[in-house]
Amino acid sequence: MINKVLVANRGEIAVRVAQAATELGMETVAVYSDADETAKHVRRADEAYHVGSSVAGKSYLDQESLLEAATETDADAIHPGYGFLAENESFARRVEESEFIWVGPPSDAMADFGEKTKARAIMDEAGVPIVPGTDEPVDDPEQVKAFADDHGYPVAIKADGGGGGRGLKVVSGPEEADEAFRNAKREGEAYFDNDAVYVERFLENPRHIEVQVIGDTHGTVRHLYERDCSVQRRQQKLIEETPSPALDEETREELCEAARAGVAEAGYSSAGTVEFLYEDGDFYFLEVNARIQVEHTVTEAVTGIDIVKEQFRVAAGEELSFEQSDVEPRGAAMEFRINAENPYEEFNPTPGTLETYRPPTGMGIRVDDGVNEADRISPFYDSLVGKFIVTANDRTEVLERSKRALEETEIDGISTTIPFHLAVLDDEVFVESDHTTKYLDQQFDGLDDS
Amino acid sequence: MINKVLVANRGEIAVRVAQAATELGMETVAVYSDADETAKHVRRADEAYHVGSSVAGKSYLDQESLLEAATETDADAIHPGYGFLAENESFARRVEESEFIWVGPPSDAMADFGEKTKARAIMDEAGVPIVPGTDEPVDDPEQVKAFADDHGYPVAIKADGGGGGRGLKVVSGPEEADEAFRNAKREGEAYFDNDAVYVERFLENPRHIEVQVIGDTHGTVRHLYERDCSVQRRQQKLIEETPSPALDEETREELCEAARAGVAEAGYSSAGTVEFLYEDGDFYFLEVNARIQVEHTVTEAVTGIDIVKEQFRVAAGEELSFEQSDVEPRGAAMEFRINAENPYEEFNPTPGTLETYRPPTGMGIRVDDGVNEADRISPFYDSLVGKFIVTANDRTEVLERSKRALEETEIDGISTTIPFHLAVLDDEVFVESDHTTKYLDQQFDGLDDS
Repeated sequence: MINKVLVANRGEIAVRVAQAATELGMETVAVYSDADETAKHVRRADEAYHVGSSVAGKSYLDQESLLEAATETDADAIHPGYGFLAENESFARRVEESEFIWVGPPSDAMADFGEKTKARAIMDEAGVPIVPGTDEPVDDPEQVKAFADDHGYPVAIKADGGGGGRGLKVVSGPEEADEAFRNAKREGEAYFDNDAVYVERFLENPRHIEVQVIGDTHGTVRHLYERDCSVQRRQQKLIEETPSPALDEETREELCEAARAGVAEAGYSSAGTVEFLYEDGDFYFLEVNARIQVEHTVTEAVTGIDIVKEQFRVAAGEELSFEQSDVEPRGAAMEFRINAENPYEEFNPTPGTLETYRPPTGMGIRVDDGVNEADRISPFYDSLVGKFIVTANDRTEVLERSKRALEETEIDGISTTIPFHLAVLDDEVFVESDHTTKYLDQQFDGLDDS
Repeated sequence: MINKVLVANRGEIAVRVAQAATELGMETVAVYSDADETAKHVRRADEAYHVGSSVAGKSYLDQESLLEAATETDADAIHPGYGFLAENESFARRVEESEFIWVGPPSDAMADFGEKTKARAIMDEAGVPIVPGTDEPVDDPEQVKAFADDHGYPVAIKADGGGGGRGLKVVSGPEEADEAFRNAKREGEAYFDNDAVYVERFLENPRHIEVQVIGDTHGTVRHLYERDCSVQRRQQKLIEETPSPALDEETREELCEAARAGVAEAGYSSAGTVEFLYEDGDFYFLEVNARIQVEHTVTEAVTGIDIVKEQFRVAAGEELSFEQSDVEPRGAAMEFRINAENPYEEFNPTPGTLETYRPPTGMGIRVDDGVNEADRISPFYDSLVGKFIVTANDRTEVLERSKRALEETEIDGISTTIPFHLAVLDDEVFVESDHTTKYLDQQFDGLDDS
């Protein structure tokens, strides 16, 4: 068993991981940069270790400092949270080869799913539907045109190591192919140190649906059903929900089982997410996120299964604590990301002092946050200060409760995404669940952006 | 439908009722005394009306002021919460006879269950097990002794209008009967304006188990299973949980159905609680609480049913929104009452300024409270400032999560019951659920009371 875990992260996910660890009887170690000396995640841990200056590269991304912190505090495990080093294969491997337990997927599985063409091949093999695309990287724009001649425009050129929209170029006709090919290769090289690119059919108006999976080290992988994360602004998720209102029962079972089987094929363990695009009744594998995700909470809300606790259990060599048939989602849940951003001004970050902070209370409300009133929201890190997770018997009640909860929240001193969320909750397209990932960028006019 | 509701209460229950009303699309009116002008329940309502000075008798208990507030604000319904006028039969009747909708049980049912002998008779008729006792009031101590000769000592003499321990005298032998009889009558007269008393067998070491029921005005009553409230200090509940660890499935079904049937018999509607004592495998009817209770939240946590919303629906003449077979409790839940009291000093109230207030967050935590940081906790009202409701897959996980949540809570400026709760969570008797209602007063030595 793990006696003491070092949480190699900050903010709400560091608090959340420490809460799970504490409930399992472990001691917890927080790490902090100069900017975070008095942060909530530090206050919530049993002990804390200073790992460097405020710039993440010199603290939360500094592998040496983090391993030193684990050694100095006699931790026996490291949980990376999400972001920072969570999907850094070389860090995972270093931890695996050290005396510490890595609370995450094995570095080999991370490597497999980190390469897009390899991930596609694994999933294809397991019978998961894949967006039609080239099996191998392409090395000539003519191959792009040939693919488009077979499958129709638009097509996407994607950097093999890419993710989150980086290294992605959309080609609407043959005249755009040459330049897009060059740009995708250049971005792949610059961001991911890998200039290989491949070509896929481009879905113009899809929903984003993803399946939560978790595996143990005894060969068992289970799924915890799906989340719908179609409310995105420039590929950044803002609202996530479960179940997806876009799926019928049969499609849901098929999708979730396909995702589970694909991941099981790759010898995966710990928590992960299989992302899909869904359009016109068909779903297509997008990528695997080999880590705990921000939005894991909505799955916990309807299944009752504590995903972070399961991560600890399987990291310690235990079997998953539940059978597939125990996973019975109940009701509906939605997560609202509370970012320190100004939705009236292009969602620009709004660092500053959190003068008032009174999150919502009452039935069906879970608050996961990384801040206390009077904290300074630092400009050094991402702008997520907390998440409100709203659960109810069905989506309609979730919408009513969410509106109530967001309206009663009192935050002064910084701008947040709350006015944006309230406008979305009043928007008919979202209420009727007719939205796709293009909804915010193309259809939504609920907030006066002027 | 109800468009605007006046919440005739304060503190956490006024906030909770307003939250449900807001989710149902109603407007809400708060009432407040001088002491509560800036209180949370005022801030959370759409509008607020001043009903008098800080002493409850001149504000929250002032029927004229409350009715005036409803008239002046054009409310069309009144929700009484719990305490204050919630079980005041004459107020309920006045509201019923006014133009306002009473969001509570009918005054006739309140009257029936308000008289102990009548309540016993109704329940007995419906087949609910009753503590052996006299069917009618007794008017001579000799009748007490005769009853005890038949059923054995100890027996309890109880004021017919009594409740909460007032007007209750325990008689351990014939030599105590005369004085106890006189005292019970005197207390009944003084507190309840009713000097009738009756005699019951006295259970020495029972558990307190109660069943949540709710009825509509179309003759349907359903139950929402039981709560175990055996953690009491001098008859004041401090921790409540569901399911009761003391019941097996068969007993649970039997108890809940008996309670439901008994209440249905009396033409009951709205929310109510049927309280039982449980000893040596047998349960005995204690009393009906004709109102929403503090601890309704743990039932909501495992059933997903919003009991306050159901109260509003049935008050508006709708049918209950669920069938009995829809009530499927899942997991376990526990409520901790956060009182402004000093558990190291006989639980004396500790009014003062809430200098720091950071309630717990994260998975499985619901916070219902009536305060904000920097509030002054007033000496005028009861000491309940909030409730933490902890839900998990089973009781063991609830205990682990509760400890985590109570330990992470930061409150400065006043003493609270949190150290007491933490000591109970470490006490083997409670952990093993071997406790009865006498546990705190007789067995518990977790807190140094010196």
